[in-house]
Amino acid sequence: MPLTMNREVFITCAVTGSGGTQDRSPHVPRSPKQIADSAIDAAKAGAAVVHCHVRDPETGKPSRALALYREVTERIRDAGEDVVLNLTAGMGGDIYFEGTEDMGRIGPRSDMAGAAERVAHVVACRPEICTLDCGTMNFNEADYVMVNTPGMLRDMAKRMTAAGVRIEIEAFDTGHLWLAKELEREGVIPEPVLVQLCMGVPWGAPDDLNTFMAMVNNVPSGWHWSAFALGRHQMGYVAASVLGGGNVRVGLEDNLWLDKGVLATNAQLVERAATIIENMGARVITPAEVRARLKLEKRAPL
Amino acid sequence: MPLTMNREVFITCAVTGSGGTQDRSPHVPRSPKQIADSAIDAAKAGAAVVHCHVRDPETGKPSRALALYREVTERIRDAGEDVVLNLTAGMGGDIYFEGTEDMGRIGPRSDMAGAAERVAHVVACRPEICTLDCGTMNFNEADYVMVNTPGMLRDMAKRMTAAGVRIEIEAFDTGHLWLAKELEREGVIPEPVLVQLCMGVPWGAPDDLNTFMAMVNNVPSGWHWSAFALGRHQMGYVAASVLGGGNVRVGLEDNLWLDKGVLATNAQLVERAATIIENMGARVITPAEVRARLKLEKRAPL
Amino acid sequence: MPLTMNREVFITCAVTGSGGTQDRSPHVPRSPKQIADSAIDAAKAGAAVVHCHVRDPETGKPSRALALYREVTERIRDAGEDVVLNLTAGMGGDIYFEGTEDMGRIGPRSDMAGAAERVAHVVACRPEICTLDCGTMNFNEADYVMVNTPGMLRDMAKRMTAAGVRIEIEAFDTGHLWLAKELEREGVIPEPVLVQLCMGVPWGAPDDLNTFMAMVNNVPSGWHWSAFALGRHQMGYVAASVLGGGNVRVGLEDNLWLDKGVLATNAQLVERAATIIENMGARVITPAEVRARLKLEKRAPL
Amino acid sequence: MPLTMNREVFITCAVTGSGGTQDRSPHVPRSPKQIADSAIDAAKAGAAVVHCHVRDPETGKPSRALALYREVTERIRDAGEDVVLNLTAGMGGDIYFEGTEDMGRIGPRSDMAGAAERVAHVVACRPEICTLDCGTMNFNEADYVMVNTPGMLRDMAKRMTAAGVRIEIEAFDTGHLWLAKELEREGVIPEPVLVQLCMGVPWGAPDDLNTFMAMVNNVPSGWHWSAFALGRHQMGYVAASVLGGGNVRVGLEDNLWLDKGVLATNAQLVERAATIIENMGARVITPAEVRARLKLEKRAPL
Repeated sequence: MPLTMNREVFITCAVTGSGGTQDRSPHVPRSPKQIADSAIDAAKAGAAVVHCHVRDPETGKPSRALALYREVTERIRDAGEDVVLNLTAGMGGDIYFEGTEDMGRIGPRSDMAGAAERVAHVVACRPEICTLDCGTMNFNEADYVMVNTPGMLRDMAKRMTAAGVRIEIEAFDTGHLWLAKELEREGVIPEPVLVQLCMGVPWGAPDDLNTFMAMVNNVPSGWHWSAFALGRHQMGYVAASVLGGGNVRVGLEDNLWLDKGVLATNAQLVERAATIIENMGARVITPAEVRARLKLEKRAPL
Repeated sequence: MPLTMNREVFITCAVTGSGGTQDRSPHVPRSPKQIADSAIDAAKAGAAVVHCHVRDPETGKPSRALALYREVTERIRDAGEDVVLNLTAGMGGDIYFEGTEDMGRIGPRSDMAGAAERVAHVVACRPEICTLDCGTMNFNEADYVMVNTPGMLRDMAKRMTAAGVRIEIEAFDTGHLWLAKELEREGVIPEPVLVQLCMGVPWGAPDDLNTFMAMVNNVPSGWHWSAFALGRHQMGYVAASVLGGGNVRVGLEDNLWLDKGVLATNAQLVERAATIIENMGARVITPAEVRARLKLEKRAPL
Repeated sequence: MPLTMNREVFITCAVTGSGGTQDRSPHVPRSPKQIADSAIDAAKAGAAVVHCHVRDPETGKPSRALALYREVTERIRDAGEDVVLNLTAGMGGDIYFEGTEDMGRIGPRSDMAGAAERVAHVVACRPEICTLDCGTMNFNEADYVMVNTPGMLRDMAKRMTAAGVRIEIEAFDTGHLWLAKELEREGVIPEPVLVQLCMGVPWGAPDDLNTFMAMVNNVPSGWHWSAFALGRHQMGYVAASVLGGGNVRVGLEDNLWLDKGVLATNAQLVERAATIIENMGARVITPAEVRARLKLEKRAPL
Repeated sequence: MPLTMNREVFITCAVTGSGGTQDRSPHVPRSPKQIADSAIDAAKAGAAVVHCHVRDPETGKPSRALALYREVTERIRDAGEDVVLNLTAGMGGDIYFEGTEDMGRIGPRSDMAGAAERVAHVVACRPEICTLDCGTMNFNEADYVMVNTPGMLRDMAKRMTAAGVRIEIEAFDTGHLWLAKELEREGVIPEPVLVQLCMGVPWGAPDDLNTFMAMVNNVPSGWHWSAFALGRHQMGYVAASVLGGGNVRVGLEDNLWLDKGVLATNAQLVERAATIIENMGARVITPAEVRARLKLEKRAPL
């Protein structure tokens, strides 16, 4: 079916992520307050959705402490700026192997949690959206595997839906999108379906346009989708995604740079994305419009 | 073969075209002086190449008068601003039919010239580049056909090459690109080969990304290419083209608008394209760099 | 939108065409009787649809004589074998230029007819389907242009529809498909819409899979489509078309060869296509099933 | 870069696999003798390469016992029929989780071996080719993950190369192909590089043509490639792969059926593939030709 450019685009800002970026840019927020402040600044710059991880405020390392999620949630809800909160549920599925001979056990650096524990903060904080990483793959580091089995995804998805939280499927490769369609077919992921096409994350789908188009052409009619590319293709993918009919994601989780040698803030990345979108003759839509489109329920403060 | 983003991009500004746009924007240049001035402003804004048609200074209608081409050429060469001049050779292949019954003759509005006449201004002015519309197709209007037969293309290409002018193939659909490859195989189009992928010109290739990728994937390895989309996708295609490994074309020939309700100048469109390119981490290259890449010979003033 | 393999496929046999093939194979039928016999044999071999041109019985050269079309139609209708008749309406839009200087008139070899004349045999014979070549392009020969302007297409389409004949759009490049969508949008081509994707016809869309996928991805949801490739890719495209969700066309109009050095009959090409389709786990459907799908009305003998 | 149809195609027969298919068809070979006999029959039918797993002769369940691999290797080498032997190295990287809460350990059904153990049979048997599954992903079953980390792949690849065995990369999704390119760039996978594009294996790349083309377009120029699709698309992918420029793989590992309701033998699947390839005007090449192309060294009997 022919593609049509998206004329009404929402921007998600991925505020901080879980990568080891905290020491590479002073703008990567660490504490709940910093994360919430950066998210709110992004919202002011035009992001309708803010996608948040949390970090240990001291070290900047990724955390999945409930108290941190709760503080981020409260701070964002209490701020005057309207924005749709999207919390990650991507953590707790990390296996690290040590070497290539001792394969019979998961290594000590692993962080493997059960389904209940992985969605505990989602159930507690009830963001309007949370993510579901729809597959298992090698990540960039030599012996780190992101594990999300179909059984785990079904369990997590049911808990998310029971909590009234809209699922954002994260598809890191074409097979993840296929699995997402299976989950939707099974009724595990309710409508309206939202999927994020994650391009250029090693070792998932590369960020060339041929692979991107294979992903886009496989999004079922009626689903809502967004896309991003890791690193320097971030702004190029803003344009490509809008041309392909999708929404966009930018932010420090995916890219630290505004220009060569110039580190970005989240708000600056959102502003730049908004400029590109508007230059293309499309309109950046508001949190209220996103809620109508995705059937989200605006939350009161916790 | 995998695509790679282009990190060193040249911008062509298509300054005025032959469309009936002269009454739709005050910024569409008509006289040779206006065209040259607008081209030079575009060069100052970052365009390494300026692609020029000429128009009747009074009416603004397209013309192929040699004197007008010569004046544009002289003015651009005499200006202090370095830029690669690219003249159209697209005119003189227009058949208009009158109605749908009297088909045995070409209609009175037609402008059909022989090969020698179609390239006379190229031979006389010796721009560094001239275009060759590599096919025959219906144009937007009901009964207007752009006619460029293979025989005509061979004849024109030989004359262009004999004049020392680099050919820019214009491919308006996938079959035009195929024909261009045949002409290159025959030796009619010499290396290095340059092709412009023209997207969204009715009734040629539409500007959806699937069609664009079919074009891009069919550009032979070793060719240089650029792309543009007509109308509101112009800026989106700047990003898409760079992502796909190409160069970019913007300008009033293809699009009149800067923003909703805001008519653009050529310089503004070039500036915006440059911003998008740089935002993507690529660099806008200079006329001298384009000359090195395409083996162009810088001209002295006429 | 994701593609789905077609599990219920109809085969069109393109029986004879208008190309200069009559002296290259003894199996290319010339006379109405030969054409009808070959068509009926193809139907017996599994073709639900037979697409017929007519030829001068003496010379084998293409003709558009009404009497020849009528005889083919009568012979096919009178035969005991059920099959959907599809007559070409592609003729009468041929411009030949002589050389590259005398461009102000169409050459003497041209065959340019008005709309009424081009569809006269369709109106007279009322096949269940007739073709509409949805664009203008260079054909293989040096100075031959196939001319079908938008105005001509609108006029012909209305006459076809008024005669109760289903239109099969022939799209030879991506722009032709775009124009077809415009004609459908205007109401000139009624539902259910049927399009043939014509791959590998110089100088239309080449037959590589990237270009094919651009065509397939641009077929609107709800349209019926088929595809073929000229020459040696004919059988490969049977598989590709079924995989992409389409129907198939084979026959001597497009390809003369069964195997290296072995000239084919239409029936043999259909048999082979049927074998490939069934090997893929799909089913070859009948003329009655095609009628139900395309809302065709079975004709009584003339 | 444009695709070109492959005119000289080799067929790999995937003889038995490791799936639970042994009770679904009497033709799935179990014992080393059955596997070798079926492989030799496939070679006689036109397979230049036979890709073999081994199974427990009693139960038919997958095994990685060295004695079984050795017997298969000896039997195939001792047979009069020339064929290139390709042994799997895919086993020993299987994690099964039990449920969705007890995630801190790998389950008892897991089979996780170290690099030395995973390639022990390759080093011992020295097939001309062995496979390297170039990624980590969920497999069809609910809680089974195929694990091949980058570190493991590097280690295995070095051992394979040290043993003089050509690596066949298996890419089950676009990210696996990306990782393979990284390994080749690192020098871990030597030239000439061979990759198998594995389509339709849940939850890897789906078998639609858009995804396939994304894979094909990402194969580096100069690599040799083949493709297959699981299940009923097997024969369709023979054609698609040849059209796209690749070689083909068929066999009972991937598909049990010849026709609706008719269980296939390996030889029958190879015959059918050969028929499709020859119908397309391509030629099926021999083991000797494959050796020349992939720089393989024909082995003497063990």
